[in-house]
Amino acid sequence: MTGEPDGLPPLLIEPLIRAALAEDLAPNGDITTLSVVPQGTVAQGRIVARAEGRIAGLDLVRSTFRLLDPGLRLTVTAQDGADVAKGTVLVTLEGDARAMLQGERVALNYLGHLSGIATATRGCVAATAGTRAKICCTRKTTPGLRALQKYAVRVGGGSNHRFGLSDAVLIKDNHIAVAGGITPAVARAKQRAGHMIKIEVEIDGLGQLDEALASGADVIMLDNMSLADMKTAVAKAKGRAVLEASGGVTAARVAEIAATGVDLISIGWITHSAPNLDVALDIDTLL
Amino acid sequence: MTGEPDGLPPLLIEPLIRAALAEDLAPNGDITTLSVVPQGTVAQGRIVARAEGRIAGLDLVRSTFRLLDPGLRLTVTAQDGADVAKGTVLVTLEGDARAMLQGERVALNYLGHLSGIATATRGCVAATAGTRAKICCTRKTTPGLRALQKYAVRVGGGSNHRFGLSDAVLIKDNHIAVAGGITPAVARAKQRAGHMIKIEVEIDGLGQLDEALASGADVIMLDNMSLADMKTAVAKAKGRAVLEASGGVTAARVAEIAATGVDLISIGWITHSAPNLDVALDIDTLL
Amino acid sequence: MTGEPDGLPPLLIEPLIRAALAEDLAPNGDITTLSVVPQGTVAQGRIVARAEGRIAGLDLVRSTFRLLDPGLRLTVTAQDGADVAKGTVLVTLEGDARAMLQGERVALNYLGHLSGIATATRGCVAATAGTRAKICCTRKTTPGLRALQKYAVRVGGGSNHRFGLSDAVLIKDNHIAVAGGITPAVARAKQRAGHMIKIEVEIDGLGQLDEALASGADVIMLDNMSLADMKTAVAKAKGRAVLEASGGVTAARVAEIAATGVDLISIGWITHSAPNLDVALDIDTLL
Amino acid sequence: MTGEPDGLPPLLIEPLIRAALAEDLAPNGDITTLSVVPQGTVAQGRIVARAEGRIAGLDLVRSTFRLLDPGLRLTVTAQDGADVAKGTVLVTLEGDARAMLQGERVALNYLGHLSGIATATRGCVAATAGTRAKICCTRKTTPGLRALQKYAVRVGGGSNHRFGLSDAVLIKDNHIAVAGGITPAVARAKQRAGHMIKIEVEIDGLGQLDEALASGADVIMLDNMSLADMKTAVAKAKGRAVLEASGGVTAARVAEIAATGVDLISIGWITHSAPNLDVALDIDTLL
Amino acid sequence: MTGEPDGLPPLLIEPLIRAALAEDLAPNGDITTLSVVPQGTVAQGRIVARAEGRIAGLDLVRSTFRLLDPGLRLTVTAQDGADVAKGTVLVTLEGDARAMLQGERVALNYLGHLSGIATATRGCVAATAGTRAKICCTRKTTPGLRALQKYAVRVGGGSNHRFGLSDAVLIKDNHIAVAGGITPAVARAKQRAGHMIKIEVEIDGLGQLDEALASGADVIMLDNMSLADMKTAVAKAKGRAVLEASGGVTAARVAEIAATGVDLISIGWITHSAPNLDVALDIDTLL
Amino acid sequence: MTGEPDGLPPLLIEPLIRAALAEDLAPNGDITTLSVVPQGTVAQGRIVARAEGRIAGLDLVRSTFRLLDPGLRLTVTAQDGADVAKGTVLVTLEGDARAMLQGERVALNYLGHLSGIATATRGCVAATAGTRAKICCTRKTTPGLRALQKYAVRVGGGSNHRFGLSDAVLIKDNHIAVAGGITPAVARAKQRAGHMIKIEVEIDGLGQLDEALASGADVIMLDNMSLADMKTAVAKAKGRAVLEASGGVTAARVAEIAATGVDLISIGWITHSAPNLDVALDIDTLL
Repeated sequence: MTGEPDGLPPLLIEPLIRAALAEDLAPNGDITTLSVVPQGTVAQGRIVARAEGRIAGLDLVRSTFRLLDPGLRLTVTAQDGADVAKGTVLVTLEGDARAMLQGERVALNYLGHLSGIATATRGCVAATAGTRAKICCTRKTTPGLRALQKYAVRVGGGSNHRFGLSDAVLIKDNHIAVAGGITPAVARAKQRAGHMIKIEVEIDGLGQLDEALASGADVIMLDNMSLADMKTAVAKAKGRAVLEASGGVTAARVAEIAATGVDLISIGWITHSAPNLDVALDIDTLL
Repeated sequence: MTGEPDGLPPLLIEPLIRAALAEDLAPNGDITTLSVVPQGTVAQGRIVARAEGRIAGLDLVRSTFRLLDPGLRLTVTAQDGADVAKGTVLVTLEGDARAMLQGERVALNYLGHLSGIATATRGCVAATAGTRAKICCTRKTTPGLRALQKYAVRVGGGSNHRFGLSDAVLIKDNHIAVAGGITPAVARAKQRAGHMIKIEVEIDGLGQLDEALASGADVIMLDNMSLADMKTAVAKAKGRAVLEASGGVTAARVAEIAATGVDLISIGWITHSAPNLDVALDIDTLL
Repeated sequence: MTGEPDGLPPLLIEPLIRAALAEDLAPNGDITTLSVVPQGTVAQGRIVARAEGRIAGLDLVRSTFRLLDPGLRLTVTAQDGADVAKGTVLVTLEGDARAMLQGERVALNYLGHLSGIATATRGCVAATAGTRAKICCTRKTTPGLRALQKYAVRVGGGSNHRFGLSDAVLIKDNHIAVAGGITPAVARAKQRAGHMIKIEVEIDGLGQLDEALASGADVIMLDNMSLADMKTAVAKAKGRAVLEASGGVTAARVAEIAATGVDLISIGWITHSAPNLDVALDIDTLL
Repeated sequence: MTGEPDGLPPLLIEPLIRAALAEDLAPNGDITTLSVVPQGTVAQGRIVARAEGRIAGLDLVRSTFRLLDPGLRLTVTAQDGADVAKGTVLVTLEGDARAMLQGERVALNYLGHLSGIATATRGCVAATAGTRAKICCTRKTTPGLRALQKYAVRVGGGSNHRFGLSDAVLIKDNHIAVAGGITPAVARAKQRAGHMIKIEVEIDGLGQLDEALASGADVIMLDNMSLADMKTAVAKAKGRAVLEASGGVTAARVAEIAATGVDLISIGWITHSAPNLDVALDIDTLL
Repeated sequence: MTGEPDGLPPLLIEPLIRAALAEDLAPNGDITTLSVVPQGTVAQGRIVARAEGRIAGLDLVRSTFRLLDPGLRLTVTAQDGADVAKGTVLVTLEGDARAMLQGERVALNYLGHLSGIATATRGCVAATAGTRAKICCTRKTTPGLRALQKYAVRVGGGSNHRFGLSDAVLIKDNHIAVAGGITPAVARAKQRAGHMIKIEVEIDGLGQLDEALASGADVIMLDNMSLADMKTAVAKAKGRAVLEASGGVTAARVAEIAATGVDLISIGWITHSAPNLDVALDIDTLL
Repeated sequence: MTGEPDGLPPLLIEPLIRAALAEDLAPNGDITTLSVVPQGTVAQGRIVARAEGRIAGLDLVRSTFRLLDPGLRLTVTAQDGADVAKGTVLVTLEGDARAMLQGERVALNYLGHLSGIATATRGCVAATAGTRAKICCTRKTTPGLRALQKYAVRVGGGSNHRFGLSDAVLIKDNHIAVAGGITPAVARAKQRAGHMIKIEVEIDGLGQLDEALASGADVIMLDNMSLADMKTAVAKAKGRAVLEASGGVTAARVAEIAATGVDLISIGWITHSAPNLDVALDIDTLL
């Protein structure tokens, strides 16, 4: 992938970072550094990728150190969305050693976490190359980090599903059961939702497909359906609705699901279970 | 493991849950449920483990639903620290269907995330059974979730390292370099830290062990040392300091490190990379 | 209108009300009531509509008094969405006179403001009866009150446009100019936005209609176009996109715009300039 | 009016603006602009009054854009308190097109709302020119915006009543009833309130005037009294207390009330029902 | 003193207490109690005054424990404003031992601090018995606790000065110097301040008294003036303004200042330097 | 004392100062200064110690004025930890007179309060010169100010006890009673607390000393013991645990307690009852 995906406004990110720094520093500050490292000590540092992967979260690294010490000189030498080799220097820093040591862990925790998600997403995207299927995320995110994790999915080449319960309609099996069918459920949702809201309906089998297509839903989720049924669904839908495959999608199954011709594959584990990318800060003290 | 580890005060947990619910519900609420499920619809539900694992986070589940609807009847049928089989019912719910649907994702996101950490920790603890080594966590946590993740580590049978930069001293290589040696670094830390603060110093090789022991540090971190060196360190220390093995500890290596006789093994991935435990909410609508 | 439109979750509303009460009570409380009305004084009260209108905001009234004093007995005798005559009793209260006096102004400020918006919206909806045109709101709202104001628009029989900048795409003249045309602008937006995001494009004249329709935008905004041009646009679009009339829509012009056959008419003044509905709290003290 | 009235401290205003920007931008930012307008695009813009009126809120405009992008060059070409003709340029902007588009709506929502209040207030002030009567506001404000709205009233040439329930005493009919008369009510309030707190008492008819004057109240509110009775009250009071006319004061009645010789006329609708002043941002993109 | 002075609304107090409890409990809770005291342990406790004094802050004690555990039975056996002997039981508690231990310190810190202020104030009030002088506080308060401290002053029998910079005008020497005299300073303040705002002016000597009286200021502060000059000022003012003695008022000097006939004596040290009243929680564990 | 003790991170301090400024300025700003002092007025000022003492809190002074007006030139001419004579200039300021007047009280309230604590602590430290005893603080602090007050104790030459309930274990009499003795109490605490947590146990008499020493507690608190018993405890402990004298330590008794040979003396009144140090801001207006 080339080009840096657009990030989130600093105004929305900075309160998160302030809270993360307070989590690490409160109530008394970095007592190790304050007692051992004299005020005025200057250092140079490099944030390095210790494993191959796709980078996401450099804006958070920048903001973390700037919030601690605006005087720290920080040069970002990679960009979000870059695929880097093990050992690549991502950021160089020069300035107050105390600020560098105090911000290190928060900066790396963000960078490792988001790069891990981007890297996992990238893997799924690569596995579906040549198909029409996009990889997208779910609401199975870590509480409090959804906007950041969904950003990392975009950096990984994936696409975002709805952000939360209020920005799009997703009618699931329980909703259908209560409403007495797909048709009345979609009708009720259309009546309440404004014209800028998309409506998706989940079906468990081919038997529900015709009703779902007729209901006027924008998107139909094929939940835990067999590959054969997904293929049939694609053939029958003929583009009248976006088709999203969902449910227990492992890395191993992504390619074969994509081959059925579905438009989207939504995957929970790229946000809730992607392992961190190993990143580290190497510091040289200059005095 | 038997017995439920002591959790965190509701006063500290509830603001987190409120923020997590707002993240999912703001700004306009669950537009699907509000439009499709009539007010007053009653449902029964069961939260079920879809995989074997150790459970952590049931208090968060309880608080999530109580904050949404105090009238919902919720019975917790497992307890934090329980090792459950696939299919075990963890919680049963009965009451307003809308509240159940609105809280589902937040409750499961917490429960799956923390149970994942507890399960990963449990694995490392099991691998070191019969040794003196305890498994402990690090500050490599997801920003904003540290207290919860450290709780999950305890539920998994692990032990907690310091919470953050202000509650204990950990003198690392950079601190030592600036201070001009372990001895002056520990001395400076002792002078500033109160008598209720423990002091740990990190060493990279056996050559630093004697100085570390002599410095009066409470704990010595053996960073990325070979198994042979760790054994030697244990033999030389003779209990004069707690010895903590650290650095690139994979699941495969936990047992052999524990066999060296160290007191603690600190592991970053149990908090930053543990995969979610699969949990789900099955809902029966009663009307 | 019959039936009470679904409101916002208490979890999202209560922080707003707490802030509103603090705005009125901080820092020292209601010094008049505390000095003049003895503790334990009991009162009865009635919230009354002093003018004809449509009611919105009764949940806020209920929450305001419950946050001040859970012991106050409050009976809501109308419902959001009701069209009431002058003099109609909306709420009766009985309990601590101090709580009643302390919450009065905040409760009425919410109720009068939101009922004013609902009433203004209702007027526009009535003016378009028998046409396909829905009345919808804009982002021209009072800062901090958007969710409440959009709710009031729904209560008034109107429909909601996007909530903010992040939940839907609206490509305006400046965006088109930068992108070099409607086609590339919509294409770029489609590439970034997920499949659950709707895309609207604004056009200033009929000359842009064909390109807009071809671009695949879900909605086309006809900005400040003449009635004749709107009719032509409706005829040419043939339902291929939702058509929204916008720009300087006064109460006097709503009906004739609706008669052109557009799907929606978006109106800023129903949120930013609707006059309050006059509501009051009459208190009888019982001692 | 000449001279710019003193505003509110930035420290108090900025949290409000941050919340307003987050309301519009959260959770994912301006997805239209981020996808369509390339990073680095430069634009020029002008905020223009589209109707005649008195301007209030330019500091909020300035802060909105500065919080989004400190690099944006913003020149304020009018001042709060200025009476401007339709078409007057109030602010010119030059800089990052993305920041300009992201801040546009929040800035205009504040400016239009507050200028609307200032303009409405100005009208009442003009109607009472040549009399001793000042126009003042009430606590009938939009929840959360009281400080801003009261500022706009001052900009409009009006005067502020008490801010909330804790900074001054206002004894109303219910208080008097509970206390058993004006005399004991004022006495109790005087005993509790410190020497820096003013005391106002509301009377419904001339029959209460003597007792109110004798009570030592600083201000007497003449609530819904006839013009004749107000004149009589002015004559009897002879300056022993400030007299405030209140209750159902429409624009049409302001002049005749002022002519009675009262000191103040308090009006709710200048804050709760003043229509927005129409302001807009015209943007020229430069590339 | 008899009768309990009216406190502050729970809505304003509870956020303070939540923050105080979090200060003590975050991030990991009371690790001593959680590890040593088994869940379900029941205890009885008594909060006792260990010294004679006037009690203030019992509402804060109640709220502290209720926020921790609504099931704790708490009986307040004294009341704010009571003068108690050493050994008096103020509160009895029965219930969960863990909640009792966790809330102990926060509850006592509030109670001891506010009772200390009330006791100090009471001493000054007693020293001025039989004179017209009231004791009042200043803005020399502990940051963040002003509303509570001013409440404690009232409990002590004192009176409150203005709360902060925005609710009343106090023109000091620097203001006078800039304005070019008392007359223009007061005139400018009157023009801006609404009719519900009191105006005080500070004078350093008798030479300024006539101008201050003529200016129409409601209150005149006699700053660091001699007893003789204060007496002269009282004689000359003849009640045309409230006279407040201020500046370096020690406990020893209160009586002689009061004897001059001034209306008020404002004292900084009753809020910023009053020693704690010794209070303790005695716990009996019941199992 | 020489050398400035390390302070708290600005990131943690600034939210406190913002709240303190809002407490003084909200909701309407400094109405005196805004009405009397023209915009653009320039002033010079000096913060002066009006009594001898040790200074603490200059960083808070700096932050207070910088948050109000970054353009104010502020020169700190003393440093935290300095012992200054009466009349010493601590800070000089030059710039906008309005900002200087608005920040004066908050800055002085912090500086006087913290310097008072530092001065009181210094006195106790001086009284124990030549002994091994350090002076330390307790959790008897003013709610919300604990981190600042503990910092001031360090500036005064004292040492900090644990910050709160979660960073160290302190087993008191009630805990021992519930646990059934010191031995099981310490054992339970050791099992739960991580290896970075120190454990202290309180004993009331010599009879408990042996068990406490044998329990492996790091610190033993000698609670309200006689001087003779403390000496005996010191002799028996022989350095196997840190010994802390606690309970009713007045200034008069500090020296004799230190003479017993204990390692620490913890004192509540240095935080909860230390009188303010008198500091003032003298302003010269320049125009």
